[in-house]
Amino acid sequence: MDIATIIGIFFGFSCIFISIIGGADIAVFVHVPSMLITVGGMISATLIHFSLSQFLGIAPIVKKTLFWKMPSMQKLIQDMVNYSAISRRDGALALEKQLSDIHDPFLIKSLQMVVDGQDQEFIENSLFNEIHYLQERHQEGKKIMEFMGASAPSFGMIGTLIGLVAMLTSLDDPKNIGAGMAVALITTFYGALLANLLFIPLAGKLGIRSKQETLMREMIVEGVIGISKGEAPTAVRERMQTFVSAKNREELKPTIDMNKQKVA
Amino acid sequence: MDIATIIGIFFGFSCIFISIIGGADIAVFVHVPSMLITVGGMISATLIHFSLSQFLGIAPIVKKTLFWKMPSMQKLIQDMVNYSAISRRDGALALEKQLSDIHDPFLIKSLQMVVDGQDQEFIENSLFNEIHYLQERHQEGKKIMEFMGASAPSFGMIGTLIGLVAMLTSLDDPKNIGAGMAVALITTFYGALLANLLFIPLAGKLGIRSKQETLMREMIVEGVIGISKGEAPTAVRERMQTFVSAKNREELKPTIDMNKQKVA
Amino acid sequence: MDIATIIGIFFGFSCIFISIIGGADIAVFVHVPSMLITVGGMISATLIHFSLSQFLGIAPIVKKTLFWKMPSMQKLIQDMVNYSAISRRDGALALEKQLSDIHDPFLIKSLQMVVDGQDQEFIENSLFNEIHYLQERHQEGKKIMEFMGASAPSFGMIGTLIGLVAMLTSLDDPKNIGAGMAVALITTFYGALLANLLFIPLAGKLGIRSKQETLMREMIVEGVIGISKGEAPTAVRERMQTFVSAKNREELKPTIDMNKQKVA
Amino acid sequence: MDIATIIGIFFGFSCIFISIIGGADIAVFVHVPSMLITVGGMISATLIHFSLSQFLGIAPIVKKTLFWKMPSMQKLIQDMVNYSAISRRDGALALEKQLSDIHDPFLIKSLQMVVDGQDQEFIENSLFNEIHYLQERHQEGKKIMEFMGASAPSFGMIGTLIGLVAMLTSLDDPKNIGAGMAVALITTFYGALLANLLFIPLAGKLGIRSKQETLMREMIVEGVIGISKGEAPTAVRERMQTFVSAKNREELKPTIDMNKQKVA
Amino acid sequence: MDIATIIGIFFGFSCIFISIIGGADIAVFVHVPSMLITVGGMISATLIHFSLSQFLGIAPIVKKTLFWKMPSMQKLIQDMVNYSAISRRDGALALEKQLSDIHDPFLIKSLQMVVDGQDQEFIENSLFNEIHYLQERHQEGKKIMEFMGASAPSFGMIGTLIGLVAMLTSLDDPKNIGAGMAVALITTFYGALLANLLFIPLAGKLGIRSKQETLMREMIVEGVIGISKGEAPTAVRERMQTFVSAKNREELKPTIDMNKQKVA
Repeated sequence: MDIATIIGIFFGFSCIFISIIGGADIAVFVHVPSMLITVGGMISATLIHFSLSQFLGIAPIVKKTLFWKMPSMQKLIQDMVNYSAISRRDGALALEKQLSDIHDPFLIKSLQMVVDGQDQEFIENSLFNEIHYLQERHQEGKKIMEFMGASAPSFGMIGTLIGLVAMLTSLDDPKNIGAGMAVALITTFYGALLANLLFIPLAGKLGIRSKQETLMREMIVEGVIGISKGEAPTAVRERMQTFVSAKNREELKPTIDMNKQKVA
Repeated sequence: MDIATIIGIFFGFSCIFISIIGGADIAVFVHVPSMLITVGGMISATLIHFSLSQFLGIAPIVKKTLFWKMPSMQKLIQDMVNYSAISRRDGALALEKQLSDIHDPFLIKSLQMVVDGQDQEFIENSLFNEIHYLQERHQEGKKIMEFMGASAPSFGMIGTLIGLVAMLTSLDDPKNIGAGMAVALITTFYGALLANLLFIPLAGKLGIRSKQETLMREMIVEGVIGISKGEAPTAVRERMQTFVSAKNREELKPTIDMNKQKVA
Repeated sequence: MDIATIIGIFFGFSCIFISIIGGADIAVFVHVPSMLITVGGMISATLIHFSLSQFLGIAPIVKKTLFWKMPSMQKLIQDMVNYSAISRRDGALALEKQLSDIHDPFLIKSLQMVVDGQDQEFIENSLFNEIHYLQERHQEGKKIMEFMGASAPSFGMIGTLIGLVAMLTSLDDPKNIGAGMAVALITTFYGALLANLLFIPLAGKLGIRSKQETLMREMIVEGVIGISKGEAPTAVRERMQTFVSAKNREELKPTIDMNKQKVA
Repeated sequence: MDIATIIGIFFGFSCIFISIIGGADIAVFVHVPSMLITVGGMISATLIHFSLSQFLGIAPIVKKTLFWKMPSMQKLIQDMVNYSAISRRDGALALEKQLSDIHDPFLIKSLQMVVDGQDQEFIENSLFNEIHYLQERHQEGKKIMEFMGASAPSFGMIGTLIGLVAMLTSLDDPKNIGAGMAVALITTFYGALLANLLFIPLAGKLGIRSKQETLMREMIVEGVIGISKGEAPTAVRERMQTFVSAKNREELKPTIDMNKQKVA
Repeated sequence: MDIATIIGIFFGFSCIFISIIGGADIAVFVHVPSMLITVGGMISATLIHFSLSQFLGIAPIVKKTLFWKMPSMQKLIQDMVNYSAISRRDGALALEKQLSDIHDPFLIKSLQMVVDGQDQEFIENSLFNEIHYLQERHQEGKKIMEFMGASAPSFGMIGTLIGLVAMLTSLDDPKNIGAGMAVALITTFYGALLANLLFIPLAGKLGIRSKQETLMREMIVEGVIGISKGEAPTAVRERMQTFVSAKNREELKPTIDMNKQKVA
């Protein structure tokens, strides 16, 4: 999980916690029936809205996307430049030895296609198709999170309405009014907290992660096509650098690929 | 109806039910005049918004879409591969015998066109036209559900306003205040519940179902065109597999079509 | 007016009426100053937003669109098929005798152009221009209705604020509180009712009507072009049937045009 | 200012005024500090959002657009037809004498270009560029008005929050509660009134005015191009009439240009 | 920082301040725990939504964009006209001497490319790529500000819910009710103020600044391309003036470039 998410969640709940213990008993804010209606209602609505496989798939997608380790762009370009130098000197088959050192399955698959001598159009179509399905899965995850972020406050409000009606029909003892209303408001609190501190920001992070991952994969495709065409390392670097802003591009100039390639 | 919808509706209403009986008498929440204004107002607004045929058509569309049994993509591709093998060996007319075993009317119609020797462009146009009207009907159903989801809370609020005014004009007996307000809030509760647990998520499901059904039909069109062109089973499979992500594509490699075809 | 609109308005106001008399005196809900501020404010805002001619034009547009009698698609195609048969046998001039039996001015104008021997491109341009201005007028009417639907609740709220301030500044007699708040809430009730039971759904109906009327006119243009090109009745039917879903298309197969044409 | 805006503003404030004096003392609704926070906050936010030149430019743009006298389309076409007749008989230079009778600077500029013998493409580009910048200024004015319409209710609510907190911290004398809350609500009233009776509808009018003025200018461009090409008056009329719906087009048939031209 | 932003922020907070001290003790409105939950919650949600580098990058982007000194368009065109004259007389290399007087890094880079004799297509691609990344950074900054503007009121409401529950569970002493509710409302006040007086308008200003800066850079690209093509100063001016409305264009006619160029 990226560090910002961890800090955000930890810091956010600390603020809420401090805010609560400053004015009231924390026990008042832990109310299981209120959780049931807010979280249960939200999950029910999500199940009705989406298919079971989409719903069950959300956890792995979210986990994978949040924990996906974004590689350095410069390292990626450097690697591809090296692969292209190897491919030019020793032929595409020589890349096969490199595959065992790579961890990203998409990169492995891309290079394997070059090794297999697939033609350029086929590589491009296959990989962009792959990227397309990845994006669609990300979009699906994001939509489910957004729906949960819209649904949680609604069920919070429904819970509060139930609590208010319950309180209003038992007004005999005025001492109960305060406690009754307090309990009624807890569900609205739960709904607002879940939506604003978890679902809405996490949906946003999913979108940003998806964009980064897509960019990374498009750079790989660009590089692999250069390699499969037998382009010079400099040409491959230039292809990939169009995805990078000029400022960051300068820093990539020092090429240590030639040495590294001999080692390989 | 897909299992997620059933679980969601059952689980959702259980949460509401448990939540109610935990704090109040369930009888308080069953209030026929409140139902009349919320549901009646919503239905009236829907009738004014849409045409009578659209309104009456919503029930069958929703039912059909929710209960539509999504066939397995792999089975569909397998079947089409078999049909293409049959067509190549024994001629397109031989497909006619297969039609009796098929349940999907769209697939029957598609294959019948091949049997009838219609030219490829005509088949494509007719079937995409068909898909277009299907999507339009789905869209219509979705829009009506969404309008109901927006209308129900509004009439809930209108009901609450009526209840509040009624209560405020009869303040003589302070004991009535609580009960009056409780009754007034019931319509808001009904409106929020109908919108958030039924109409909004069901409209979402309709959209997802529509997308799946459209995809399925587009795969059929792609396959049928391959068959009508007399393509090899492998070519037909590849045409249809562009609709499937690479991961799921691997699993489809084992082709048992040749044996099956002889049986057929 | 289409039957759904009549049923919806009648049923909707009945629900409101029953709901009111069930709990309070109906007289409480008839409050002329509250009507003044809600309706008057809404009309004022609409006048400021739109031009006077647009504002005055809304009534006839709405009336015309709601009362426009949607002809049967099948009858329309049947008629056009007959006209094409007549035109092929007896020449385009023979269509002139048919014009007196037609009620739709758009259809009359379209056929008159064929009779006048206008060239096909001119007919197409003129008629699509006509359709374009019709759609624009519909869109204008829809926008005004939607603006009213957004404005009415706002002025309802403004009225309630005025009522609350009035009540709060005369708290001396606590007996007035209830009555004062009840009156204050009436404007919100008016605004919500006008928006949700009239303006928003009527704007929706205008949109649906506009779509139907546009489709009908596009079918006429398609048919008239076929006639002006001297196409066979079957070709004209096929042109027009692309606007109809396949299911409804079958029913149109029986052509009684040849007999009918001889009669004509 | 167009008559609808004047009627709307006058009628709207009358409704509010009558509504107020019916229930309360008008003095209660005139509260300078409340105006300060609602209007001052809104202006501050607008200054932060837009640049100073945009903010200062809003008044003249709004004034110009609202007071712009929409000329009659038929008169415009008639004039252009006359100019084209003059140009054809006596040459483009003869148009120069007409310029002194024209009030619209855009029309003067357009004809001057013809007189100067500019080529058609240059005229078209210059004038469409001009129209583009006009639209952009209109759009800017509209956006500022819309932002004010969104900002005013927010600062109304902020004022109410300040008032409520002030009232709640001085509850010692219960007699103050009513007056305190009444004052607190005044800012919400101001914000809602400014937004719904002024800024939102005026932004709408700006949009409609912009559309009309653009249409008028596009008609002028179309006509001027016809003149510069030396087209016949009828051709110029037909060019310009494509902007007019067929119904209004008939009325333009009587051409009195020939006589008028001789007079000129 | 542009003057409008400074005036707006100063004037806005003055209005709030005057409004507060008019009715209550200013100390009531300075409540640290309320700030913690509103600001802390908002920052937490922003961290969860965006990546750490985006979050940390917001401050410099906002600062740079707000403080970016918008150069005069007329001066920019004048300068470019001069550069083009120099380039035509003394060759592109002569521009190098001018670079030391320029402060805008983008302009320096653009001219350097001309000096370096890069071909026109390369210059265009590089510079538009640069502009694209600038816009993307601006967009990112704007999105973060907008998210904060949406998040602050939500955490304000969450804080108010916590405060209300705390108050309602300690109703024993009725004297606390007013103070408790006052404190509870402070967080809503903070959230509304931050959103409406800071984040939402500042996001708007970022957008307007971004548009201006982009326009300026596109004008530079246009001018530089003209210079690199060896176009005459008048042609360069005309290229750049297509970005300026005709009214402002007249004022640019007096060209003092020839004298200035000799000086250079």
